[in-house]
Amino acid sequence: MIGVAVVGYGYWGPNLVRNVREVDGARVTHVVDRREDRRAEAAVRHPDVAVVADFATVLDDPDVHAVIVATPVSSHYPLALAALQAGRHVLIEKPIAASAAEARHLVAEAESRGLTLLVDHTFVYTGAVRKMRELVEAGELGELYYFDSTRVNLGLFQSDVNVMWDLAVHDLSILGFVTGEEPVAVSAMAMSNIDGQPENIAYLTLLFESSLVAHINVNWLAPLKVRRTLLSGSRRMVVFDDVVPGEPLKVYDRGVDLVVDNADRYDLLVNYRSGDVWSPRIDPSEALKVEMSHFVGCIRGEEAPITGGAAGVAVVDILEAATESARRKGSLVELSRTGALLG
Amino acid sequence: MIGVAVVGYGYWGPNLVRNVREVDGARVTHVVDRREDRRAEAAVRHPDVAVVADFATVLDDPDVHAVIVATPVSSHYPLALAALQAGRHVLIEKPIAASAAEARHLVAEAESRGLTLLVDHTFVYTGAVRKMRELVEAGELGELYYFDSTRVNLGLFQSDVNVMWDLAVHDLSILGFVTGEEPVAVSAMAMSNIDGQPENIAYLTLLFESSLVAHINVNWLAPLKVRRTLLSGSRRMVVFDDVVPGEPLKVYDRGVDLVVDNADRYDLLVNYRSGDVWSPRIDPSEALKVEMSHFVGCIRGEEAPITGGAAGVAVVDILEAATESARRKGSLVELSRTGALLG
Amino acid sequence: MIGVAVVGYGYWGPNLVRNVREVDGARVTHVVDRREDRRAEAAVRHPDVAVVADFATVLDDPDVHAVIVATPVSSHYPLALAALQAGRHVLIEKPIAASAAEARHLVAEAESRGLTLLVDHTFVYTGAVRKMRELVEAGELGELYYFDSTRVNLGLFQSDVNVMWDLAVHDLSILGFVTGEEPVAVSAMAMSNIDGQPENIAYLTLLFESSLVAHINVNWLAPLKVRRTLLSGSRRMVVFDDVVPGEPLKVYDRGVDLVVDNADRYDLLVNYRSGDVWSPRIDPSEALKVEMSHFVGCIRGEEAPITGGAAGVAVVDILEAATESARRKGSLVELSRTGALLG
Amino acid sequence: MIGVAVVGYGYWGPNLVRNVREVDGARVTHVVDRREDRRAEAAVRHPDVAVVADFATVLDDPDVHAVIVATPVSSHYPLALAALQAGRHVLIEKPIAASAAEARHLVAEAESRGLTLLVDHTFVYTGAVRKMRELVEAGELGELYYFDSTRVNLGLFQSDVNVMWDLAVHDLSILGFVTGEEPVAVSAMAMSNIDGQPENIAYLTLLFESSLVAHINVNWLAPLKVRRTLLSGSRRMVVFDDVVPGEPLKVYDRGVDLVVDNADRYDLLVNYRSGDVWSPRIDPSEALKVEMSHFVGCIRGEEAPITGGAAGVAVVDILEAATESARRKGSLVELSRTGALLG
Repeated sequence: MIGVAVVGYGYWGPNLVRNVREVDGARVTHVVDRREDRRAEAAVRHPDVAVVADFATVLDDPDVHAVIVATPVSSHYPLALAALQAGRHVLIEKPIAASAAEARHLVAEAESRGLTLLVDHTFVYTGAVRKMRELVEAGELGELYYFDSTRVNLGLFQSDVNVMWDLAVHDLSILGFVTGEEPVAVSAMAMSNIDGQPENIAYLTLLFESSLVAHINVNWLAPLKVRRTLLSGSRRMVVFDDVVPGEPLKVYDRGVDLVVDNADRYDLLVNYRSGDVWSPRIDPSEALKVEMSHFVGCIRGEEAPITGGAAGVAVVDILEAATESARRKGSLVELSRTGALLG
Repeated sequence: MIGVAVVGYGYWGPNLVRNVREVDGARVTHVVDRREDRRAEAAVRHPDVAVVADFATVLDDPDVHAVIVATPVSSHYPLALAALQAGRHVLIEKPIAASAAEARHLVAEAESRGLTLLVDHTFVYTGAVRKMRELVEAGELGELYYFDSTRVNLGLFQSDVNVMWDLAVHDLSILGFVTGEEPVAVSAMAMSNIDGQPENIAYLTLLFESSLVAHINVNWLAPLKVRRTLLSGSRRMVVFDDVVPGEPLKVYDRGVDLVVDNADRYDLLVNYRSGDVWSPRIDPSEALKVEMSHFVGCIRGEEAPITGGAAGVAVVDILEAATESARRKGSLVELSRTGALLG
Repeated sequence: MIGVAVVGYGYWGPNLVRNVREVDGARVTHVVDRREDRRAEAAVRHPDVAVVADFATVLDDPDVHAVIVATPVSSHYPLALAALQAGRHVLIEKPIAASAAEARHLVAEAESRGLTLLVDHTFVYTGAVRKMRELVEAGELGELYYFDSTRVNLGLFQSDVNVMWDLAVHDLSILGFVTGEEPVAVSAMAMSNIDGQPENIAYLTLLFESSLVAHINVNWLAPLKVRRTLLSGSRRMVVFDDVVPGEPLKVYDRGVDLVVDNADRYDLLVNYRSGDVWSPRIDPSEALKVEMSHFVGCIRGEEAPITGGAAGVAVVDILEAATESARRKGSLVELSRTGALLG
Repeated sequence: MIGVAVVGYGYWGPNLVRNVREVDGARVTHVVDRREDRRAEAAVRHPDVAVVADFATVLDDPDVHAVIVATPVSSHYPLALAALQAGRHVLIEKPIAASAAEARHLVAEAESRGLTLLVDHTFVYTGAVRKMRELVEAGELGELYYFDSTRVNLGLFQSDVNVMWDLAVHDLSILGFVTGEEPVAVSAMAMSNIDGQPENIAYLTLLFESSLVAHINVNWLAPLKVRRTLLSGSRRMVVFDDVVPGEPLKVYDRGVDLVVDNADRYDLLVNYRSGDVWSPRIDPSEALKVEMSHFVGCIRGEEAPITGGAAGVAVVDILEAATESARRKGSLVELSRTGALLG
């Protein structure tokens, strides 16, 4: 039985605890939170779990084999580092750390100790995103044209990160997992509508060595919830809509073909295809439960990390470049190639 | 009775002819198109209208008081100029011309001759967009935060302009009309997915002297049709969705307020409002018919142009700057201030 | 060239005129309407068509080969009968007549004279409904379980018929065309919410010799527009939604299978299938244009009537039985079998 | 601290346990289920709760003050009766019992002993349904015209009740709570598409002493999920859509007014209103938690039952009449008036 301590019982922590409890072979030993009201709530819900304020004591307990870090981003690095150095496997809520340097240090630490280091890129474990990757890998979409994602709602303003480091992480992790491609440059704009608060609106455009282009629109201050990703290729196009219930994924047999037309050069060079639409059945398993099972499988050495530290580093590399581009009002910033990590 | 000649009977021309016919006090005298098949179709539908291939002959006819230009963009300038020089009032399909210089020349020509020059910024004449302007003018939205518009579908590739000059024109004309503000700088990215074709995907971000930010996402190669504009302010937020039938405009009493909270600086500095949603009744009149009536009213001197040449120039100024920014991969391009024109 | 007179230029007449004009080999010779304002509007739109008040004069004109009747229901019978007796082919707006006796008389008159008699069951000519029939005929749905249709909106109250005779006609015509089955009994409830007005809300349940059941919910006084038909079978289920743009037809690979389970009789006797969803591409042709072409094809003897008089009679038979059931507050009324007509 | 035993840990039981745990002043003492696998799951999730197979032992425990019955319908009566006779307060999952006689007996038993008897008409505790009642009570809708509810999906076939006794219960409880009216007669049709299984599709039409009409369409074998209720009145109309996220309730300022028109009796007697649409903010509290708090409040004598035994009896009375009508193929069945109970 693998003992897991969950550090941070805020918005996401309760979901982590609940899902670890559902995994065979794992149990939650501790919930750690500095805030008394959060500890009280955890204690009511989980009377069989030790609820404590101090993280250090957790690392003294030999029943704790793994630590899940679900605290504000700035504390990811010190907490995860301490856990790794104490020989514990670690799963970190996204983004993996507040800087690429921190993220790389964590990866190195985990590798040198032979410990599992996962980042909680939750969407990668949804049935819809896994199906998108299958479609791309099977060549169903043809050559990839663009990835265009909108993720906006009236969201919780974070105190220590802006909307890119909060929401765009999801899109960047989906983008990397589904396409298997890494961007070479990014142009970003980010703005704050509320004085003294982090940027709540951001637009990122990413270029790749291939002809793929990616665009990400994230916003904490939108009146309605939109979670829509378009992935278009030369053969087919996919839309992933995570809000409207029912069929989250639609595959469109639509696009254009170039046609040589000598008679009339005006508007017949492009030939349109508008065929069937298909919504493949999606595995309805809760992503977080799939992820927690995977974490346990990695700890046991039975599975290879899907969202390992390298995936976390790749996302933070892009976020740092985007931050630099936004500082320079959209000027293109090249990404130093770190492909070795993403492997 | 004002005689109107419609030049160009392609995609948009038939709608123009149909709507001019519905306006009291106007009649369609000629349809002009170089293409024989288009002339044949016009002749079947409108047996009482002269259908001709040659524009020059139209200008010889004293029964023609006004000319509507609905041809490819590159021909807007020469056709409109000839009509103005022949003393005819002119309405031009958007964008008004292929360059700001051309557009300014047309404006000067019309002014010097005392002729009406309108640009067909159709959306400005919809009930939904007029209602948005009313809400802004009445202060219902408070200080404007952002304008975020998505206009994508599997659209006709144009041969002589890219997707910015085709679709973003709509958003720019709505933006200018609704907010009454002019951007001071633009960052744009534009890409072509089909070799040898104009850019079919573009992202524009516009900055203003005020804190307003605008983003426009246009795409000719999307599998589904999205026509959605968010306009958010400090008091309320508006969503204009032109695709889902029923209520195109929703006003959300949502947003955030800054709250000073000394006890817990973690996440309570921002206070969320989530109130009612309201869909005002929208005037269902067909925009093009409203616009054609307005054109006749302007010609008669009874109305002042809503989308006059200056509005056309303002949009083309932005398109030129966006084109330059896209050429420089998103670098911010400042707009030379031409506020006098927009008035 | 087949000359067509359109009688009645109210809500539907203009659509009929416009579509006849688009058909090769046909032309509109006359528009007939007693109302002066309707004649004026027709004259403006169609300067090449004779617009008259008196139907009798039309029948004197040898250039008129066919008559389309688009007047209030109570006048369908006398106008169509006069046209048939004058040797003209006839197409009648739905429902074909105000009673089954009238409808049968028209069928007999047309047959004895060898004239084409069509009823304007428009939906039968849509790509979506034709595709539904294809799916049923190909056995894709398996054994048919139920047909459940909702057709409600804030609609025009008719003066001479109630909502069943106005809206349910559409559902009954789709039902007959798609399933090829005739009901043997009907239970109906119909209510008026506005004193002195025809029933504006009605519910019909139809039984068949097979296990098929049909339900129709029609309402002139609903705040939103719903046009949704479910057709479920043992193998697959189809939903036809005529309001949301995009894909009107969805085929669901969903259902249940009976499973013998000896161990636990509690809830495992039914096994659920939840597979892919598929939206076949639908022919986007305008139904009314397809229908007008078909009318001309029938007149020329090149095509056999798809919605001939017999289809009109079958629908009116059901409406009469439903009227009787509604009078008896839902008591089941058997339909005298008239299968020979539907043949 | 009020001790609560939850009997039945199937589909709904876990939700009941979770919500009782969230209520201040209550705790779950026992979970009872005869099935070993269900007990095992309850034990893992709630290590602090006694999980037992035998109901009798629960009634021996003086720490148990209340019993929640969430078992198949046929066992509601004996279990609830035993609990009441043992002096325990009782909450029963809907429907309250398998017959009106059983239901009345439970009510009498609870009254004679001064115990709280609630039925779990969950929807009554949602913010949307409470808002609907507020609107009706405030006269915002005017005179009520009709209530039209559709509740279909691919649902679990129940072994001991049909779809009316499973799904229509929700609509009947909403109808009674929102309108405060009781039906005087019902016409129903119910059909089974799967041999040997309970009816999976049913249509109910209810008549009232007022002009109100209600229609309910329930179906376990539908490919998509619809949960939509229209409540229309002379002044306004409300739509409650429980599937599409966002705004579940919309209030339409739409309808018709009778207008005397002497000039043209054809289609001007009815005047249409099509005004604004308004989505009031809805209390997002989880209905079951509200209900559990209310149960505790009733036990303490601090609150009066909202969905007491009488509400349960009223619903079962209608279900019995509908069952009789369905047996007689839609013939209208009058309801013996039991208004005293509903009070």
